[in-house]
Amino acid sequence: MQAKGMSLDIMYAMDLDQAKQEQDRLSRGRSWIETFRENVNARVSEFVSNVIKLGRDDPRRVLHSLKVGLALTMVSLLYFCQPLYNSFGVSAMWAVITVLFVFEFSVGATLGKGVMRALATLLAAALAVGAHHLANLSGRIGEPILLGIFVFLQAVVFTFARFYPTIKARYDNGLVVFILTFSLISVSGYRDDEILKLAYHRLSTILIGGSACIIISILVFPVWAGEELHNSIASNMDKLASFLQGFGHVYFEMDQDGVSKQDKSFLQGYKTVLNSKNNEDNLANFARWEPGHGRFQFRHPWKQYLKIGARTRRCAYLIESLNGHVKPQAKPEIPGKIRETCMEMSLECGRALKELALAIKTMVKPFAARVHIENSKSAAENLNSLLQSSGLWDDNMDLLQLVPMATVVSLLIDVINCTEEIAESVHELASMVNFEAVEPTVSPEKPETGQSKPVKPSDDVHTHSVIIVIGEASLEN
Amino acid sequence: MQAKGMSLDIMYAMDLDQAKQEQDRLSRGRSWIETFRENVNARVSEFVSNVIKLGRDDPRRVLHSLKVGLALTMVSLLYFCQPLYNSFGVSAMWAVITVLFVFEFSVGATLGKGVMRALATLLAAALAVGAHHLANLSGRIGEPILLGIFVFLQAVVFTFARFYPTIKARYDNGLVVFILTFSLISVSGYRDDEILKLAYHRLSTILIGGSACIIISILVFPVWAGEELHNSIASNMDKLASFLQGFGHVYFEMDQDGVSKQDKSFLQGYKTVLNSKNNEDNLANFARWEPGHGRFQFRHPWKQYLKIGARTRRCAYLIESLNGHVKPQAKPEIPGKIRETCMEMSLECGRALKELALAIKTMVKPFAARVHIENSKSAAENLNSLLQSSGLWDDNMDLLQLVPMATVVSLLIDVINCTEEIAESVHELASMVNFEAVEPTVSPEKPETGQSKPVKPSDDVHTHSVIIVIGEASLEN
Repeated sequence: MQAKGMSLDIMYAMDLDQAKQEQDRLSRGRSWIETFRENVNARVSEFVSNVIKLGRDDPRRVLHSLKVGLALTMVSLLYFCQPLYNSFGVSAMWAVITVLFVFEFSVGATLGKGVMRALATLLAAALAVGAHHLANLSGRIGEPILLGIFVFLQAVVFTFARFYPTIKARYDNGLVVFILTFSLISVSGYRDDEILKLAYHRLSTILIGGSACIIISILVFPVWAGEELHNSIASNMDKLASFLQGFGHVYFEMDQDGVSKQDKSFLQGYKTVLNSKNNEDNLANFARWEPGHGRFQFRHPWKQYLKIGARTRRCAYLIESLNGHVKPQAKPEIPGKIRETCMEMSLECGRALKELALAIKTMVKPFAARVHIENSKSAAENLNSLLQSSGLWDDNMDLLQLVPMATVVSLLIDVINCTEEIAESVHELASMVNFEAVEPTVSPEKPETGQSKPVKPSDDVHTHSVIIVIGEASLEN
Repeated sequence: MQAKGMSLDIMYAMDLDQAKQEQDRLSRGRSWIETFRENVNARVSEFVSNVIKLGRDDPRRVLHSLKVGLALTMVSLLYFCQPLYNSFGVSAMWAVITVLFVFEFSVGATLGKGVMRALATLLAAALAVGAHHLANLSGRIGEPILLGIFVFLQAVVFTFARFYPTIKARYDNGLVVFILTFSLISVSGYRDDEILKLAYHRLSTILIGGSACIIISILVFPVWAGEELHNSIASNMDKLASFLQGFGHVYFEMDQDGVSKQDKSFLQGYKTVLNSKNNEDNLANFARWEPGHGRFQFRHPWKQYLKIGARTRRCAYLIESLNGHVKPQAKPEIPGKIRETCMEMSLECGRALKELALAIKTMVKPFAARVHIENSKSAAENLNSLLQSSGLWDDNMDLLQLVPMATVVSLLIDVINCTEEIAESVHELASMVNFEAVEPTVSPEKPETGQSKPVKPSDDVHTHSVIIVIGEASLEN
């Protein structure tokens, strides 16, 4: 109706507009499909490259997958071979289930789970047979009721036991298997009169599946949980060392030594140490199951590793606080001597941690670490006297200017104390398992910046902490 | 022979000695048994009291155990009832197995595991039936070989997939069930011609077991993972708040306010926050499965909780560094005004965290927190000017004396900044889920020590961090 009053020109223009919009819509549609396709392609290629990286980062993952496949195919033989199938029948599936729930990445975890599963099954099967006989005595109506009560009671008791912290940490898997086996055998026994045969089949197939897992995991490229723990403790220490060795340069912006502005990734490496507790606890739990292998005896002091790990983490918390101060901000003019001494503290402490990490890794007594710690402590004492000599400071400089730097200094001193504690526990470990005593080939006694006299290694690592020395020094004034 | 030359006296004395030794040994033996008995008694009573404490601390644990027992007894009916047993036969045991592996403490975990198990079983059963038909085509000799290859390949691929971090976090359980079902059905199919019936039985019994778990866990005293996460985030913040509120008194040894020397347990409470990451990640993963319940919608922003949790942990690391300074040591004489200002910073920051924790717990907008943060920041600025006015300090006081205190001040400032970040993310959460807006009944604007003027809450929480303010202030001088 309205179009009637419109001129042809306008109508022509409207047509053109519509055509244009149509074309736009079409091209938008095409581009939407293209964008979608590109997105999918990008996602897929990212996923594939991630998967390849996953395998390349740790080829043992690929090996583990192959091992699981091998074990699973092996126990499938129970079905495929007629003589084997004749003796086990459908119970063969327990072997398959066992492989899937027992085969873990490390030998310790597999052994622990396998042994636990076998023991729990044995115990539960025995009790279930007993319960079945007891229930049998109570007649046709009483039997299912009594069986139901037994199942209910053991489920309640053992499910509650799983909340008990020490039980949870060590026997959680065993308790689940116990409840499962007891329920299955006692209840199946109600239908199947050959309950002893049932229990025997379940036990023997579980033994077959479990031993397949254990044998393959030990013989084919074994992954030892103990070695994992050992290496992860050493590498965590190494990450802290990298931070401390680089911190001085970055904080005081002295990048002449090849540390470019972009290359600050080593300042982030320590972050994984903050949340390492769970992993270490698990590995230590698994490691206790492992037989002697390579450099590790059967009763290797894995608990000591947890102690070292806890102290390393404490050091990481301090470094997290320290890292908060590495940011672009207005820094006060710090006299050159103080700056150098601070850098030396951080550097020597980093070197000490690096030495300790290397000592653990190679299982050699950490001789040089002591020297580095002494050096960093003497640097701290140097700083002490530098701060006391007021000649270094301008007259128009106020106390406020000191606050950010004092914090860094104080945190560094805390880090040194923490490093000393780590060294102490590494020394304990070294004497527990008789680390090799190899004299260092390169003398570490010359500090790079060389302005505090290096200290000969003393026998007593347990010297008083530096923070107290500072407190005393200030009180003497 | 030697006895011949001995006098009777000596021999008599020897007899006496022997008798005495004998008596000693006997009494030692008795006391050894008694000690052993006492030890066992002590251990047993300790264990029992621990168990009672376990139940009393969280009665939901007892309820959970009862619920598992109930579910297990319910699925046992599949065996006990003749009509049910007729339709399922021995497959009924899958229901028992499902209950044990699916029933978890929280609704979210149970739902997630149950749904995942059902889907994985469905998918694996379909593929296994397909694989079985494919293998059937290749003749009597080819069939087991082809089936073996299928089992091997899928085990390798899906075991490797379990290493992929995002898959591991969400679908780990599903993958295990997939491998298990595929292996069982394709391999059993070789012996059992009614493979479709086998797959159907397995699927339907798993559905029965799974739905028993899900229904019981939702209807009978449900434990929601989302609520757990919600409460644990709030209680972690509360622990940090308790530390900060008590820190000032303990550090400056001003115990007049009823904080006795023994009652320092609140200074240790924050330690559990340090290692809370794993637990929070798990709870958030479970919570995503939960339907709307109580105050939580279905798509509650659980990720935001993880963000708040990460920032709370960062604050806890700072507090760990701060806690290193709470120890008996020679402290320098600190001017009273500085001490009071420091205490106010810590106290107000603690109050802010307490307000934030309360706000999350009660889902009410945190009005007062802003005021407390502003107060603590103005206290920090006060400290700023106090430090600059040199009149406060003795002339014979050197810079060294400032180092330990400067560290505490600087860490406190970092904690305030961190608290501000936490407040920011809590505000984000509050606007995401529309926290209730309730004006505080008690005006929190009057700080206790009352020497810095309180600041009105401003709309902009994102003010610059205090450490920069200090830097600028010092550069202006």
